[in-house]
Formats: sequence, structure tokens, C-alpha cells
Amino acid sequence: MLATVIHAPRDIRVEEVADPALSTGGDAIVRVVAACVCGSDLWPYRGVTPTREPHRIGHEFIGIVEEVGPDVRSIAAGDFVIAPFYVCDGTCANCRNGVSTSCLNGGWWGGDDRFGGFADGGQGERVRVPLADGTLAVVEGPVSDDEIPGLLTLSDVMGTGHHAAVSAGVGPGDSVAVVGDGAVGLCAIIAAKRLGATTIIAMSRHPQRQALAREFGATHVVEERGDAGIKAVRALTGGIGADRVLECVGTKESMDQALRSTRPGGMVGYVGVPNGGPELPIRRMFDRNVGVNGGVAPVRGYIDELLPDVRSGVINPGLVFDLTLPLSEAAEAYAAMDERRATKVLLQP
Amino acid sequence: MLATVIHAPRDIRVEEVADPALSTGGDAIVRVVAACVCGSDLWPYRGVTPTREPHRIGHEFIGIVEEVGPDVRSIAAGDFVIAPFYVCDGTCANCRNGVSTSCLNGGWWGGDDRFGGFADGGQGERVRVPLADGTLAVVEGPVSDDEIPGLLTLSDVMGTGHHAAVSAGVGPGDSVAVVGDGAVGLCAIIAAKRLGATTIIAMSRHPQRQALAREFGATHVVEERGDAGIKAVRALTGGIGADRVLECVGTKESMDQALRSTRPGGMVGYVGVPNGGPELPIRRMFDRNVGVNGGVAPVRGYIDELLPDVRSGVINPGLVFDLTLPLSEAAEAYAAMDERRATKVLLQP
Repeated sequence: MLATVIHAPRDIRVEEVADPALSTGGDAIVRVVAACVCGSDLWPYRGVTPTREPHRIGHEFIGIVEEVGPDVRSIAAGDFVIAPFYVCDGTCANCRNGVSTSCLNGGWWGGDDRFGGFADGGQGERVRVPLADGTLAVVEGPVSDDEIPGLLTLSDVMGTGHHAAVSAGVGPGDSVAVVGDGAVGLCAIIAAKRLGATTIIAMSRHPQRQALAREFGATHVVEERGDAGIKAVRALTGGIGADRVLECVGTKESMDQALRSTRPGGMVGYVGVPNGGPELPIRRMFDRNVGVNGGVAPVRGYIDELLPDVRSGVINPGLVFDLTLPLSEAAEAYAAMDERRATKVLLQP
Repeated sequence: MLATVIHAPRDIRVEEVADPALSTGGDAIVRVVAACVCGSDLWPYRGVTPTREPHRIGHEFIGIVEEVGPDVRSIAAGDFVIAPFYVCDGTCANCRNGVSTSCLNGGWWGGDDRFGGFADGGQGERVRVPLADGTLAVVEGPVSDDEIPGLLTLSDVMGTGHHAAVSAGVGPGDSVAVVGDGAVGLCAIIAAKRLGATTIIAMSRHPQRQALAREFGATHVVEERGDAGIKAVRALTGGIGADRVLECVGTKESMDQALRSTRPGGMVGYVGVPNGGPELPIRRMFDRNVGVNGGVAPVRGYIDELLPDVRSGVINPGLVFDLTLPLSEAAEAYAAMDERRATKVLLQP
């Protein structure tokens, strides 16, 4: 079968690889219906994180179950499933606490081989899914083609944007500023509106993304950054800053923007993968009682809550996909996202 | 009248100073019934923060109102009042949000002169209280002598311990670890129990403080620190760490202890004044979804909630005072706390 392999920075190839096979008893084989490229896939693409040897890549996909191992209970052949960007058992202490990204028995797509000999990446024709009962979420009933993009966002970006909002404690009537206008930032706007925020400030300089932000619920757009951006946010929030700020980038500059845009007593919810490990200025946080909460988003647990709103059209996160390509053009998908020609690319095997 | 003045590191003197006088219209003059020495007073005492010129010191006191300015509405001569460790108007946007330590019109005892020409320290016979309506909390009815220590803790340490617990989101059934066995850490144990925590781990090596921690509600004591301390906390919390960890010290080591003792998805509530500005390791927080929330505690807003429980004896934070001295011996009070001969010293003018 075909799957995407990264060989080196900017060297993405779709190659013939071995078909996956059941091996642990708790696996499922899923035929991928749609996959996508994540902002975090760009770190190895750009060489920010090293690629020591060629390996499978991709961690967001949806598909149809082809076969399951003898120990699988809640998933069956023919099921339409959403895979989160990680593997989890759904039963350990951390999963029960809602932090399935810290599953004591879980792991990451494409990265390690603790699950019966190998771990697939998600950008391929088929994927072996370890811990299928805990990892996969079943979508009931017939799934129409136009549902595909929205369902695919539940594998990562919609759940991650939601996690930023939940971590920041967004609630009815809050003012919220969103730092970052990528797919996650845009989904964070959806989440903030869904949770009841009434002032939603999108920090964006990109005309198409500004338009989508407004469609998703942003009440204001701030183009300025740094001190001017903070001043603009304060002007929209009674002079004190936003109740909740959602940091969806992961750089030192974006976190600084977020911390300084938050009112005293407010909270930053952050989901941008910290790039290079900027540290947090505790004294500034302390003096103003600005908290920081978030991390790698436990999206598996959010699927049950968000799926009905996606299927009913109450929210429409699938609009973040602005380019669809066949799997064979995965290299172009990476290039388009790297060059910001596309916000989010959907790949069709 | 007499008041405490710091001249230089380890040079604390009780001196004759000018009597306070009403000046802004919104002031009250309070005769101090009891004051105390704060752990943060030890920073200038030890020379960690500089003392450029002699100045009044102290910021925790209770007393009886002697006179009020013509604009004061909610306070009257004869009232028994609790002063928080700062001045606030109670009406600005930040005060309304519950963050009166960020009052847009407020300030600090002993530190600046924006309120009509001067700001007293709290360790003296009398104090002029600016913004009296917002700052002072009235204790109704007769106050007996044995209520004094408990009421005095509401000026800082009990409210600050409570803020650590509130910031961490402590709720019924939680496991909580408390880093720091000073007066604030001990009060944080009271707060955790009061908010429903069922496993409360005191990290302490000091026998008397361990005993008080148990009296306040600690279910376990961990003497180890560093990796051994983290291992001990995990052993008491199902192997994953405490749901909530209350950081009541303010050093890099104590925050590291707190972050690493928290389970994935848990929260550190911190109130220890960051000493020298250690920064927070964001990547470690991100990977495990450990949040950090807290800061300089807005204790004025907590007095209304905590006062009934203090007066009824449901909680007994006054036990943190293990030494009482006359105001004239303020220098010995500082020395006793500096040398850890006393947990918390009460001064009687």
C-alpha cells in the first residue's frame, strides 16, 4: 500500500510500504478515508526537529474499520471511526481523569514500536490502530461525503482548540482573545463561542483567516502585535485585558502576547506546542494573578461532546480545510502549509 | 506614637513617629490591636530586597477604628476591623473581578505615598487607612481576646492559603499536596480540607509543624524532597501524583517540587512570592497538562467567606501564632522568624 514517509527536511515521499497486519489482539486495521497535515508536522519538515532516519508521518485521520483483533470489544469491521492524534487505552488512571494524552499505556503515531512491532503514521492508505477500543471513536450511521472535513477536525484541531478554551475556563459572557490564526486558533474561536464567550477577539493579519474567524464567531479582529496588540485588546475589554486568552501558536512571542493580553485574575489556555521551550515569566504572572493552563490536548475525550454539534452543523470546523489533494501529492500539501498558501490540507488516499 | 522602622538588613527598630492624621476624606485612623510579621517581611530583613532608606514596615493588622474621614460610608469609629495586606477601593474593574490586589486605585502599606502624602506600615500603634470603605472589613459584635489570633490571620496568611487552594481548583474528594510548612502552607492545609480534599499531604520536616499540619487536616506527612519526595507523593496518589499541589514557598526548588508532584491534568496553585524570579518550565507543563495558577492573594475578598468559619471555630488558623511579643520587641520577632524559632509572631502594641 501507499504511505507518506519523511526522509529529511523538505523531503516528503509517498511510497509503497508493507500492508499493516493485526498483531496484538487489541488492534484494528483502518482504511483511511481522509487524513491531513498538522502544523506540528511542519517542525520536522522545516528541520526544526531532526529526522534521523526515514519514517512514517501523519497523525490525523478518519476511516473505515476493515478488521479487528480478537480482544477488541467496542469496534467492529465496517465502523466509521475517528482516530485522535495519539493512542490510548481509555481505562488507565490518567485516561479516567480526562488526560488520555498521558495514557499510561498509550503512545504516538509513527513514532515508536511498543505496540506489537511498529507504529504507522496516519498519512497512508491503511493504519494499524493499537488499543483500538480506547483509541477509536465510532461515528454512527451513514456518513456523507460532506461530513468528512468536519469529522476529520475531531482528530486534532477542533478538539485542540476546544482544549485551549476549556483549559482557560471560558464560560458564558467572557471576553476571549485568540492568539494564532492557524487551524487550531480558528477552531479555538468556534470553541469560545460554543462555550458562551460574548467578546471574541481574533489576533490575525491574514484577510482570508480574518473572514473565517468572523464566520466562526469572532466579534473583533486585532491586526497589531506586541505592545500595540495588547493596547488594542485592552481597549476592547474595559481597559484591563481579556478574561481568557487562548494561545494557539507555541512561540515565546505568542505566549508573551497572550500573558500580557490577559486581565488580572484571568487565565491563558495554551495548546501551541512550545517550540524550543520558552519559559514562563513567573513574576509577571504572580503580580497579576494570570494563570497558565493547557498542554497537549486530550482530544479523544472531547469527541463525544463535540461530535453531535459537528454532525448537526451547529459548528462547522471543516471549513478550516482550504485545500484538498490526493495522498500522492502529500509533498505539495506540506509545501502549501509551510508557505502559508493553505491553512489546512486534506489528503485523500 | 510608636511604630516599627527598618533601617537596614537585620536593623529593625521601634521608634517614635508622627501620629497619623486624616487627609484624603476617604481615610480611617485605626488603633492597632494586633499586628504580625510576614514571611515576606524577611526579604528586606535578610537583605534579599534592598532597603535604600529607613521606612515603616508591616502589612498585617487588625484594630479598632478611631476616626473616619467625611467620605467614608461603611466604616465608623468604634468598629473592629481587619485590614488586608494592601489597600483597595473595592469598586474598580479588577476588584469587581475578585482581584483586589490589582486594584486600579490601590497600593501597598509602607511602600508608597500616593494616598494623601504617606503610607503607614502596619506594625505600629496606629495606622491611617486610605480607601477605608474598600480596604477594611468590619467584624460585627463584641470581639473576645481569644479571637484575636484567628482574625489576624485573615489579614494575610489564611486568605493566602485559601487562595492557593482556590487557584488550584481544590474540590471535594481531591488529593492535595502542600509544599511549604510556614504559616501560609499550614493555612493552605486548612483551606484544602475546608474545600473538601480527602487526601492532604503536608511536605514538612519540622516536628511541631508536622503536628499542626495534622491538626489542621493533613492525612499524610512527607519529609523527603526532590525525587524522593515526588516518589512519596505518587505512592500516596495512585502512582500518578496529586490532583492539586499548593506551592507556598516561592523558590525555584519548591516550584519544581510542586510541578513534578502534580498528576497529568492537575493544577499547581501558588502563592509563594517568587524569590528572584524563577521561570516556569513550559515544556514539562505542556507534555503533562499541568497548569499553574495563583499569585498575590486577593485576601480582602475572602474575608467575608472565611470570617464566619473562623468565628465559629470551624477552622482555627490562629494556631499558627506560636509566639506573642509586645510591639517594642519587634526586632526579636523578626529574629525569631528568621531563625525559624517561631512560625508566626503576633505583636501587641
